[in-house]
Formats: sequence, structure tokens, C-alpha cells
Amino acid sequence: MKKIPVIIDCDPGHDDMMALVLAYGSGRLDIRAVTTVAGNNGVENTTRNALNVLHYIGADEVPVARGAHDGIVRTHKETIERLLAARRHMQTEEENQEQSKITGAAVHGVTGLDGFDFPRENPKQVEDIGAVELMARILRESEEKITLIPTGPLTNVGLLIRAFPDLIHKIERISMMGGTSEFVLSRPFMEFNTFVDPEATKIVFESGIPITMFGYDVTYRVMCGMDTIGRIEDLDNHTGKMVSSLLRFFMERHNAGLKRLALKDVTPIHDACAVAGVIDPGLVIESRMLHVDIETSGKFFDGATICDYTGSLGLPANVEVVYDMDTPRFMDMLVEATGNCR
Amino acid sequence: MKKIPVIIDCDPGHDDMMALVLAYGSGRLDIRAVTTVAGNNGVENTTRNALNVLHYIGADEVPVARGAHDGIVRTHKETIERLLAARRHMQTEEENQEQSKITGAAVHGVTGLDGFDFPRENPKQVEDIGAVELMARILRESEEKITLIPTGPLTNVGLLIRAFPDLIHKIERISMMGGTSEFVLSRPFMEFNTFVDPEATKIVFESGIPITMFGYDVTYRVMCGMDTIGRIEDLDNHTGKMVSSLLRFFMERHNAGLKRLALKDVTPIHDACAVAGVIDPGLVIESRMLHVDIETSGKFFDGATICDYTGSLGLPANVEVVYDMDTPRFMDMLVEATGNCR
Amino acid sequence: MKKIPVIIDCDPGHDDMMALVLAYGSGRLDIRAVTTVAGNNGVENTTRNALNVLHYIGADEVPVARGAHDGIVRTHKETIERLLAARRHMQTEEENQEQSKITGAAVHGVTGLDGFDFPRENPKQVEDIGAVELMARILRESEEKITLIPTGPLTNVGLLIRAFPDLIHKIERISMMGGTSEFVLSRPFMEFNTFVDPEATKIVFESGIPITMFGYDVTYRVMCGMDTIGRIEDLDNHTGKMVSSLLRFFMERHNAGLKRLALKDVTPIHDACAVAGVIDPGLVIESRMLHVDIETSGKFFDGATICDYTGSLGLPANVEVVYDMDTPRFMDMLVEATGNCR
Amino acid sequence: MKKIPVIIDCDPGHDDMMALVLAYGSGRLDIRAVTTVAGNNGVENTTRNALNVLHYIGADEVPVARGAHDGIVRTHKETIERLLAARRHMQTEEENQEQSKITGAAVHGVTGLDGFDFPRENPKQVEDIGAVELMARILRESEEKITLIPTGPLTNVGLLIRAFPDLIHKIERISMMGGTSEFVLSRPFMEFNTFVDPEATKIVFESGIPITMFGYDVTYRVMCGMDTIGRIEDLDNHTGKMVSSLLRFFMERHNAGLKRLALKDVTPIHDACAVAGVIDPGLVIESRMLHVDIETSGKFFDGATICDYTGSLGLPANVEVVYDMDTPRFMDMLVEATGNCR
Repeated sequence: MKKIPVIIDCDPGHDDMMALVLAYGSGRLDIRAVTTVAGNNGVENTTRNALNVLHYIGADEVPVARGAHDGIVRTHKETIERLLAARRHMQTEEENQEQSKITGAAVHGVTGLDGFDFPRENPKQVEDIGAVELMARILRESEEKITLIPTGPLTNVGLLIRAFPDLIHKIERISMMGGTSEFVLSRPFMEFNTFVDPEATKIVFESGIPITMFGYDVTYRVMCGMDTIGRIEDLDNHTGKMVSSLLRFFMERHNAGLKRLALKDVTPIHDACAVAGVIDPGLVIESRMLHVDIETSGKFFDGATICDYTGSLGLPANVEVVYDMDTPRFMDMLVEATGNCR
Repeated sequence: MKKIPVIIDCDPGHDDMMALVLAYGSGRLDIRAVTTVAGNNGVENTTRNALNVLHYIGADEVPVARGAHDGIVRTHKETIERLLAARRHMQTEEENQEQSKITGAAVHGVTGLDGFDFPRENPKQVEDIGAVELMARILRESEEKITLIPTGPLTNVGLLIRAFPDLIHKIERISMMGGTSEFVLSRPFMEFNTFVDPEATKIVFESGIPITMFGYDVTYRVMCGMDTIGRIEDLDNHTGKMVSSLLRFFMERHNAGLKRLALKDVTPIHDACAVAGVIDPGLVIESRMLHVDIETSGKFFDGATICDYTGSLGLPANVEVVYDMDTPRFMDMLVEATGNCR
Repeated sequence: MKKIPVIIDCDPGHDDMMALVLAYGSGRLDIRAVTTVAGNNGVENTTRNALNVLHYIGADEVPVARGAHDGIVRTHKETIERLLAARRHMQTEEENQEQSKITGAAVHGVTGLDGFDFPRENPKQVEDIGAVELMARILRESEEKITLIPTGPLTNVGLLIRAFPDLIHKIERISMMGGTSEFVLSRPFMEFNTFVDPEATKIVFESGIPITMFGYDVTYRVMCGMDTIGRIEDLDNHTGKMVSSLLRFFMERHNAGLKRLALKDVTPIHDACAVAGVIDPGLVIESRMLHVDIETSGKFFDGATICDYTGSLGLPANVEVVYDMDTPRFMDMLVEATGNCR
Repeated sequence: MKKIPVIIDCDPGHDDMMALVLAYGSGRLDIRAVTTVAGNNGVENTTRNALNVLHYIGADEVPVARGAHDGIVRTHKETIERLLAARRHMQTEEENQEQSKITGAAVHGVTGLDGFDFPRENPKQVEDIGAVELMARILRESEEKITLIPTGPLTNVGLLIRAFPDLIHKIERISMMGGTSEFVLSRPFMEFNTFVDPEATKIVFESGIPITMFGYDVTYRVMCGMDTIGRIEDLDNHTGKMVSSLLRFFMERHNAGLKRLALKDVTPIHDACAVAGVIDPGLVIESRMLHVDIETSGKFFDGATICDYTGSLGLPANVEVVYDMDTPRFMDMLVEATGNCR
């Protein structure tokens, strides 16, 4: 079966790591590039993490290009300030201190991928052109259309669309993790990726490119439990060691928040959902074509998506919003893909 | 038992009608005044409707004062435009035409209280001073603190707070219908009352006055069905005729929207909840003290409340947010109060 | 000649003091009330200052009512924060400290009227009803229409319009000091009064009431010099002592800023212009009927007026914008009025 | 003397035309590329106009790349709507119709460069890569730093900065036409270029790149009169014919607006100022280093620059704001450069 050509644009991140392992291990995707963006951490760290993961799992042939540190309009510094204001008292003073420097430290640790010691030396190097340019070059040179899988803030994709409008027609689809069609845990900032770069999100939603959105609400229902981690450990391969260690760390970080849902020892794997949907659209049990938009101002809802499922706004549907996924099958995919890596 | 002194500030409206009947028929409230505001309809119509209901049920001794037509900052005209934009394609072109002039026509009809023919002549007259002045006078002259029950946009109450800051301490509590702690039916404009006057809502939330909020999410779960309407008809009294006729009309108007919830032939009685909570706080099964705020800008979330139930914003709790109510007991109260009127 | 009935709504303030002296001493105005508002200082201080000035000049018969401390939408606390942000480095750290508590301390001193020792005891007392209620009562009971002269933020007037829409037709005209038709000294916050309460300003501009606007640009050109102060001192009367002392203080505070204009030892008397224009409309040498509006959001221009003198917005003229005044005649009026007081 | 390497980013436009003629004819600039952007017209037309001008004056060796049609955040369609709202009644209904499709038609005609018939066939072709990519490639490959001269909306430059942060250090300076340090003719939308893309302007101002700003206020004082046009006609060369014809057209279009200033038969040459300042910095008679910022929201001031010349905001200076230029010398430069072309 012909592989599907994709570019994965990410900010690893534990769930981005899982997205990369799934994409590579599935054997179903032709990963033309991995590009990085600031989100869970600054772009230096997310780039290093992407290189570490890809080298570790044996995907050295996949080129990695460094992307945007600042959002399209708002700088990384502004984003950190907005995040702090939006979750001022979610943590201890010490944690606040730590997070006044790093966006996603609460969930991913200070490196953006805490919980596993990658080898200190990594022969794999970043490309000498940037993410947007590499994406443009790949799109231009490809005869087939290419699917973009953004799992971080949409900064790089937004810049690509605006700086290279001639290449939009070469994008098959955008399968994104981000936004939400519901309040989830009543987070004032709704969903991290769209919160970080609302203007980039606006550009993507208005681009006319087919979009499938795996929002925070659905990715938070597709939970990975101890049984799946156990199966990954039982693989006893090189990649499995890393994956299980990182998922355990991630699960630990979620336990506090999950108490509200009366849950424990499970973890969402947000970003891998957007990859899984490309590999096997059948995983999506329920979805709807809706007009989806993004708030780009306001004191509390800045960066929140709105999925107009009553059609009140009278605007054309632009996004396939995923409502439900087949969790057991998704877990099987994760285990299998991990097993297929070295 | 001593009656509780209250002022009801409303925009009748079918559920406001029920609120008035409940307040009067319960025999537990000392209704010092009913004041009116634009909301479901312009203030001329909501005032006429209030006068009609009160006269019909025999409450001629309750003074009625006309309040604000425009919101505190936004004019009635601006509000109609915002509403149209927020629900552009919810109805037929003809309905859109109709609603380009009247805010709540889709639910309450063009008079704001369609579905019952009140006598053409009504001896009951509106006071010759306005709502805000009457409220101020009552507060100043009262030895006891008074509970305000606003069931429409908070314009009058906001003006009272700003124009008469010296009288704030005479307000015992605000038991309001408005806002929401969840998305409901994903209405882009969330909840009507706070949407209509976001700035008035801001003033109320920041006032320091104790507030109990019966939001659209909880009032939409406390459904009145055909059984309750049947019991009201069986009362076979003067007031019951009006109540059952109006509730049937209201139910009819809800049926279209309720299909989404796989419901039929039930209707919420939003505004009466805020009255019921004053009569019998035991009706409230679950509530939480939270920081509640209001978005006063933005393209999509302007006028949306945010109930910070994770405490993310780190701001002090200012509102008791009601999460659940005892529906059967509430229905009994409605029937009983209707029976107590003439 | 029949006196013109007026209500002066002010936040004294040195130039408000001059406005009161001019109004009273001119003998041409029937001052029905002086109402106070927060602006140059909190409302407690502006009220005390108004009482002090009126008693000192012998105007004990003029009732004084205390008005709003908070703006219509924005609290006094928010206003102080906005002001600090808008002029962060205009002063020393110590001055910043001082002004973190008091809005107009840089120009008017910490009391809002530094520079003269009023008698400690003042028999004149504030009315026991508030500013908005007193204005409403006066308007309702008056057979003639009344001119409002607001020289501070428009909070009280905005509240009056919204809470007492029935009384709008009793207002002859609003002769206001506030706004600007040009950048002046490129102040980021443009003009203080409209900056402090942009929403109140919106209400006033949209009210349909005839308005004459003495903006900061024109009031900053009508300069009072040492010659005028000398003439006031030569009057050698009770009131002249206070006026000259306060004007000297005010002049001193302006000298720093005036250096930019290569000026020294002159001072604007902003608020008195709005009174003078009522006493003698012939003082206005040039004015134009324009559409005037107010920005109520934005990071830098929030609270800035826009006088659409090219007609670009295509909206109807609602304000007579004053462009030039007869300075010598205005100075004569100030001296004469001061002389007419005791 | 070594030529100064530059890239000119423009939206021709009559004054852009003059900027290109000046840049090429001066013999002092090494024009590495001309890139185009939507502004005075859609990008298709501004690109065709740039090709026409460059071919006509004999500058076929200068590569031209097509840039952005939409602004970074706001689409071209949104911009047209904002422009119409900001100058609703500046023209006849017919003109409004015309301008509902074309941004700068009132000044530049429907083609964006009305007033001269260029040869129908133009052998000069646009590059096959886009503006942002070409700029990036030139910057990367250049050993020297390069000066950018944007004379249209800053969309391309903003995208370059965000998509190629590694290349920022290769930019010597940005010499831009745009913004204003004063109200000019009280235009509600202040200055066209910053109005069209406020977010791009924000990115440029925050970039840390040295910037010289030739604002609308200063460029509107550097007037070209009939004497200069006469001298250009007297050159009697190929290029002079085009230049004089286009300047006469441009002058004609300005006459209506100039009446307000009691001027006639003069025209500003905005964009050429930004080129002239690079050729000869001595032309700048007065300038100041200031903190300059841009409003990116608000109803009336969205897109307005603020030059904090009192230092009120307490933020570091980021822009050299030009206040005055040597008009006679500038006119000499324009004539001489036109004469140097074929």
C-alpha cells in the first residue's frame, strides 16, 4: 500500500513524542519532514527533543527543521505572560516561578520532555533552512499533495499559508490537534495550542484547506491506561523503553488534574490522535462538518475556538470536528507502532 | 413567618410571568416593587406585560416602575444588531425580519408575552418615577435589607449600584437568573441576559454584594412537563388559565430547539428559579462559591460568563453558582403558587 | 437679565475651582447645584474641595451632592492602573508612588487642590442624596430646561442619562470640558476626562442632547499669564487671595510640561472655559458642528475622542467642537468674576 | 562609491513608481530585488505595475517577486471593508462602488497606476518564487547586510521576520514609508500602510531591526509642485514622459483634499522619501529616536501609530522618526534620477 506523504509540525512534548513514534512505526506514512515550533517549550528545546526522539527510534532519515519561536503576532514572551495570568493559582509559588520561564513545564517538565535520559550526544542535526522554507520546498517539489499534521501551535502553518499562498493547493489536508468543541475542565484558556497562537489559527481556519480537528475535548476522552503502558513495556524493545518511561512521567503529571474527573493513572495522548486519524480515518467514530472560528481578543476567551454546531452564525462549514474515537483500536496502534521501531 | 422583602427586576417574558406568579402566590415574599427592563422585548412592552400579569393575578398593590430601554453602554439598537449577527441563520428569512426589530420574538412572540389574551383595558398604571429611582427610594426607606431578584439583563441593577453606591449595603443579596457555567446548546451568545448587557453584569459581579446565580445551564435542566401544566389546568382558577396557556405557548416555541436534546413537550422556566431560590434555599441541591466574571469584548464570546471552577485565575469567589435544583419540589411550588392566586 | 439655570458637575481641581468662581461671580448663572465626581482625585476629596471653595467664596446657598467614585464600567482602581501605564516614566519614582494612589496628584497635589489653606472647619455640608438623584430631582422640578456643565469625567451625566431617560428633554445643553480634536503634547492618554470614563463619554455623545465641547487642545491655548494673576491679586479681596494662590500653584506644576512648548509662567484654565462659553457664547471665535466619537477599547487610544472633521465616517454631527476662544476677554471675565465674590 | 544593497518592497502606486525611478536612476543603490504587496491595489495589479515601471525605465535586470495579497492576519477582503467604514462618505456613491473593490482607487485609479499608457506587452516577467522566499534567499546569500525599503503595507517584511528569524541580523536597516507622528487631515484611519496591516507593523516595530520611519505627516509636507514637474518634462527623455504624466495624474487626485490646506497643484511623493533617505541621510533635517507602537484593535484607531515623544510609556526607543526633510534637495534628486534613466 502506498504511503501517505505527510509533514509533522510539532513541539515535543510527551504526546508529540508519541505522535512521532506512531507516525514512524506505523509504516503507513511517508514522513517528508518534522518541523518544530515553540509551544510546550521554547523552540530550541522542542527542536532538540524532536531530534532526540527521531534518532532514538531510528528515524535519522527524516529531516528536522526549526520553526518559529514567537507566535505570528504575539511574542513568546507575551505568551508566557498570558499563560501565567490564565492559571495564576493553579500551582505552588515555586512552580509559578518555574513556569514564568517555560510555557508547558507543569505537564512536560523543564526540558519539555522530562522523564527519560536520552544519550547526551546526538549525531542527528537540524536542517540549515527553517521550517517554513522546508515545508514550502517540499510542497513545491512534490508531485502528490501532502498532508500536514500540526500538533503544536499553528504558527509555522499560518506563516506558510501567508508567505506561500501559491502552495496552498499542494496541501491535501490539515489533521490538527488543537482547539476544543466544549469547555474542558473549564480551563480559562481552553486549549493550549490555539491559545498560544490565535492569529495563526485564524489563518488556518480561513485558508480553505480541508481540516480535521482533534480537539482537546475528544483527545481528553481517549485515555491511555496502565494496561497499554504495560503492553509497551512487554515489547521490551529499545523504543518501548523510552515510550513507557515518558508516558509514566506524563501520567504522573496528569494525576493531580484528573482527580476532578475521579480518574487516576490514565493519560491522554492528544497529539497522536491527529496522526492516527491520518493513518486510519476509520478510528474516527463520530465527526461533524461545522463552521469553526477562533476568538482573537477578549480578556478571558482570547484563543478559544467556537464550533458553531447549531449553525447560528450562518457561516459555511470549514472544519471536520472529531467528536469520538475508537480508543481500544487507537491503543493497539500505539503499541504496534512502538513495536515496529527498533 | 415573616415575609422576605424583595424587588423583582424583570422583562416579561413567559418565564418572568411565572416568576411573578410564584413570587406573589407563594405568600412568602414581600414584593416591594416590580421594575422592568428591556430584554426579551423593548421596555414599553415588558412594562405593559408586567402590568398585565400583576393585575390579572390580583397583585394590584405591587408598584411597577419602568426601567432602562438601552443597556448601560450599548443601546437597544446595538443589541438587536449583535443578536442578529449571533444567530443569523437560526430561523427563516421571515423570522429574521421580525427579529430585526424585536430581541426575543423567537421565543416570546412579538408582544414579548404571546399566547394569552389579556383584557384590553388595564386599570393598573406604571409609577411616575423610573425603576432605578424607585429601587433607590425603597432601599433608602427600608429598615431591613432587601433582596433583589433580577430575571432580565442587569441594566437597572448596574445603574443602581453606580448611581447610588451609598445604598449598596441595603441589598441583602442578588438572586439572579443569567449567565451560564457551561456551554449550552453551544449558543454562540451563551446566555441572553448577560449577552444583552455585559457591562451591567460586570458592575454587578464586582459589587461585593452576595450573589446567587441561576445560570442558563441549570435552569435548562429544571424542565416543566405536560404533567405540571395539567396540574395547573386542574386548578381551574383564574390565574391557572393564564399560566397554562402561556406555558403551552412557551413549550411550543422550545420544541424545535429541544429536538437536539431528544426532548419534546417540556419547557424550562428560567426566571422562576431565581425566585424559588429565595423562597426556599433548600431547593438548591448543589452550588459552589466561585470567581465568576464576564467577557465584555471579543467577536464571539462578548457577554459570556466564565465560572472559574478550577480557580485558575486566582481571584476571590464572588458568586454562589447553582449547579442543581430539586425539580419535583420546584414544580410543586409553581402549582401551589398558581393555586394561591385568584 | 434672566439668569441661566445650570448644574456644574466637577472634580476640583484648580481649574474646576476657577470654573466655580467664574460661575458664581459672573452673576449670570443660576447655579442650581454643584455635583462632584472622581477624576482629579477620589470623590471624597473632590467633594470636600467643592464645599471648601463654595463656602470660601460665599456661595453657601448652592447645594453640593456627592457623585460617582467609580467610572460607569471601570472602577477607580482600574483607572489608576490605566493612568500609571499611560504615563509610566513621566515622573520620578517617588512621584509614581504618590500617583499610584491619586489620579491627578502630579498637577493638583495630593489633596486635589493643593496650594491654599482653607479653614479647617467648614459649616457647609454635602446633601444627603447623591449627585445623580439631585440632578434628576432638579431637572424634574424645573420648568425651564437646564444647562449641564461637566468639567470632570462624564460618569454622573452618563448615569443620569441612562437611569433617567425621561428627563433628557429637560437638559438644554451640555457645555463640557473634555476630549480633544488634536493630539496635544502627544499624550498617550489624550485627554484626562474622556480617558477616565470612555463609556460615560459614549453615552453622552450618543444622547442626542446638544453638546458644546471645549477640548483640551483649545483650552490649552487659552493661557492665563502672570498679568492676569497680578490683576487678581490687585483686587485684594477674600476670593482673590485664594484664586491667585491656587493659580500660582497650578502654574508651577505646568512649567515642566510647558518647556516643550517653549513657554513658562502661564497656565491653562481648562474647566472655566466650559462655564465661560455658557455665560457668553460670543467668547467662542471658531467652532464646527462635527461627528464626535470616543474609542472605548484599544491599548493606546482607549478613551481618545475622534472629531471627524473630514466627514469620513459619514455619521451625523452631534457636537459643536470649539476651535478658538477670545483669550483676553476670557481673562477679563475671570478677573471680574473673582472681584464680584466676597 | 560603493552602491548600497537594498530590496524595495512596494505596492505601485504613483509614489512607489517615483520611489523606483529614484532608486534606479540615482545610481547609488544596488537594487537586489523589487517585491510587491497588496496595498494601493491587489497584488496582481501592484506586481504588473512594478514590472511595467521597471521595464519602461530600463531596469529589466532587477528581479521582481510577487508577495502577499492578504495581510498577515486580516484578509484583503477584510481590509476593503475596514477602509469603506473608515471613509464612508468621502466620495460619491459611484466612487464608493468602485472602491468597494479596490483599496486605493480614489488616489491611484482602478489599475493602481492610472495616468499613463504602458506598452501592452511587457517581456519582463515575475520570478517564480514568492517575495518572502526571494528576500530570504538574497539575505542568506549576501555577504553584506541589506537595507529594506518598504513603501507599502509591511506584510511581506513581517512574514520574513517571523518565518526567517535567523536572517534578521542580515538586515542593515528598514527605511519605511508609513505611520504618522501626528494626526494628518484628521484621517480616521491615520496612515494607509499601517492601517492595512497593523499586525505586520507590530512585528516590524518589535523586531529590534534599526528603523527609520518616514511618516505620512512628514511626507505630506515635502510637496512636489508644477516647477518640479516642468523640470522633469524638460528632460525630454523616455522616463520623464512617464513620470510627469503620472505625477500630473496624482496631483489632480490630491487637489480635492488639498483644498483644506489652502493648497493646489502640489502633490506629496510619500514613498520616494524612504528611498531618498537611504541614498542621502543628509536629506533628513530633523528626526528623533522614539518608542513607536501600533494600535491593533479599537473601533477608530485600529492601525494608528503612536510616537511616544513625551516618553510617557517608559519604553525604549525603537524607531528614528523623521520630522523634517530638505524639500528642494529632494526635488533635485527626483529630477536628476529621472534624467539618469533612459
